[in-house]
Amino acid sequence: MSLPKLTFVLGGAASGKSAFAESLCFQTQKPRIYVATAQAFDDEMKSKINDHRVQRGADWTTIEATIDVADALESCGSDQVVLLDCATLWLTNILLADRDVDADQTALLAALTACPAQAIVVSNEVGHGIVPDNKLARKFRNAQGRLNQKLAAEADLVVQVIAGLPQVLKGEL
Amino acid sequence: MSLPKLTFVLGGAASGKSAFAESLCFQTQKPRIYVATAQAFDDEMKSKINDHRVQRGADWTTIEATIDVADALESCGSDQVVLLDCATLWLTNILLADRDVDADQTALLAALTACPAQAIVVSNEVGHGIVPDNKLARKFRNAQGRLNQKLAAEADLVVQVIAGLPQVLKGEL
Amino acid sequence: MSLPKLTFVLGGAASGKSAFAESLCFQTQKPRIYVATAQAFDDEMKSKINDHRVQRGADWTTIEATIDVADALESCGSDQVVLLDCATLWLTNILLADRDVDADQTALLAALTACPAQAIVVSNEVGHGIVPDNKLARKFRNAQGRLNQKLAAEADLVVQVIAGLPQVLKGEL
Repeated sequence: MSLPKLTFVLGGAASGKSAFAESLCFQTQKPRIYVATAQAFDDEMKSKINDHRVQRGADWTTIEATIDVADALESCGSDQVVLLDCATLWLTNILLADRDVDADQTALLAALTACPAQAIVVSNEVGHGIVPDNKLARKFRNAQGRLNQKLAAEADLVVQVIAGLPQVLKGEL
Repeated sequence: MSLPKLTFVLGGAASGKSAFAESLCFQTQKPRIYVATAQAFDDEMKSKINDHRVQRGADWTTIEATIDVADALESCGSDQVVLLDCATLWLTNILLADRDVDADQTALLAALTACPAQAIVVSNEVGHGIVPDNKLARKFRNAQGRLNQKLAAEADLVVQVIAGLPQVLKGEL
Repeated sequence: MSLPKLTFVLGGAASGKSAFAESLCFQTQKPRIYVATAQAFDDEMKSKINDHRVQRGADWTTIEATIDVADALESCGSDQVVLLDCATLWLTNILLADRDVDADQTALLAALTACPAQAIVVSNEVGHGIVPDNKLARKFRNAQGRLNQKLAAEADLVVQVIAGLPQVLKGEL
């Protein structure tokens, strides 16, 4: 399997999207960079971060980048593969910091284009439920929808993971 | 591309479903009717309505029809293409008006069948989240699910838009 | 159509997943066992249970099994087809009873493997909305996601039902 320059992996909560994205990284047999976007606010998130660390195994170079991911992406080498997991937590960080969402989305897309390494971005589908009661949640799901559209438009390969099963939406696996 | 008599476009929030449905209308090169179902209750909705108006561009004849869409649909000419955007807001209006949901759904389907123009209906997928706490939301998502089933059964072409990428579920694009 | 040993049918609320699963059972022309996981806590659930009973019609042998489904599954004959509807209500019962979710999921998978009959399991996709506010809901959607992954991995045929339209994710229909 030959992975393209940019791959976008989309899925619901606990759909197996991260495990699938990690398996793509392993298949490249290149040095693996992990751009971690999660912030350990509480025990639940700490436990989730740890579960993900155990799942993806050793031999990853981890870069923590909760908001500014451009430096992380641009520091990668052309012989590497980088996994950004995930765009949803990154977007949450952006919104909680009350930043300009559209400007930051544009910057993220530019950084992915400029990144010398093969890149895989993981993101959540969050817009298939009932309209949320609170305004921030509505703002978030609209921003996530727009970001997913941009990532899918830019990516050469787009895969949706459903119950652990990868479904190709664009390109070829 | 030859668009059939009835097309159903399904997608999540901010998935690009409206933009895709609009692009289908443009491709027919026929005069375009827009059946607007949104009610501008508050600033958030006003802003959303405006964003959609800017997105779809000029040269649409707009008919506002928040509940009774039959007249709008039946007034279209056979040389026209009509976009109903969206069945989810229409259903919301029906529920808020405390009307008979099943009767109104049956009437909508009959009006789509009777409509002389090619028709495209946009709708939301709302049933892929956690069961909502409040009863009206549960009633709504069940009604939306049933409506989507009916629209999909009646349509010649059914497309699900995921992150801006159209996926054909029935018929041929 | 020749149904395999284990079929997994996934879908949103009111997506038509149960009706589709029932149609698969009818097509086998085998005696039909229905493993009912729903508990009639309130009028809304009673009404839902009744609607499902009317929909699936007569000539089903119903076994009520809200938590321990192993006995029900293992009691089936090899000339029968069994429908477990649904894994989501079963999981809800497990969580409300404060049991060991992972152990019970493992036991369910083992029981499906040991079941002499052809089996069809219906389940909900619940992870495509906004992160729920309350912790139990988050725990539930993670457990549901993991369970769906396990069921999909074990099943020979996996079908996602969207607006009543079956989409094959694995195997062949």
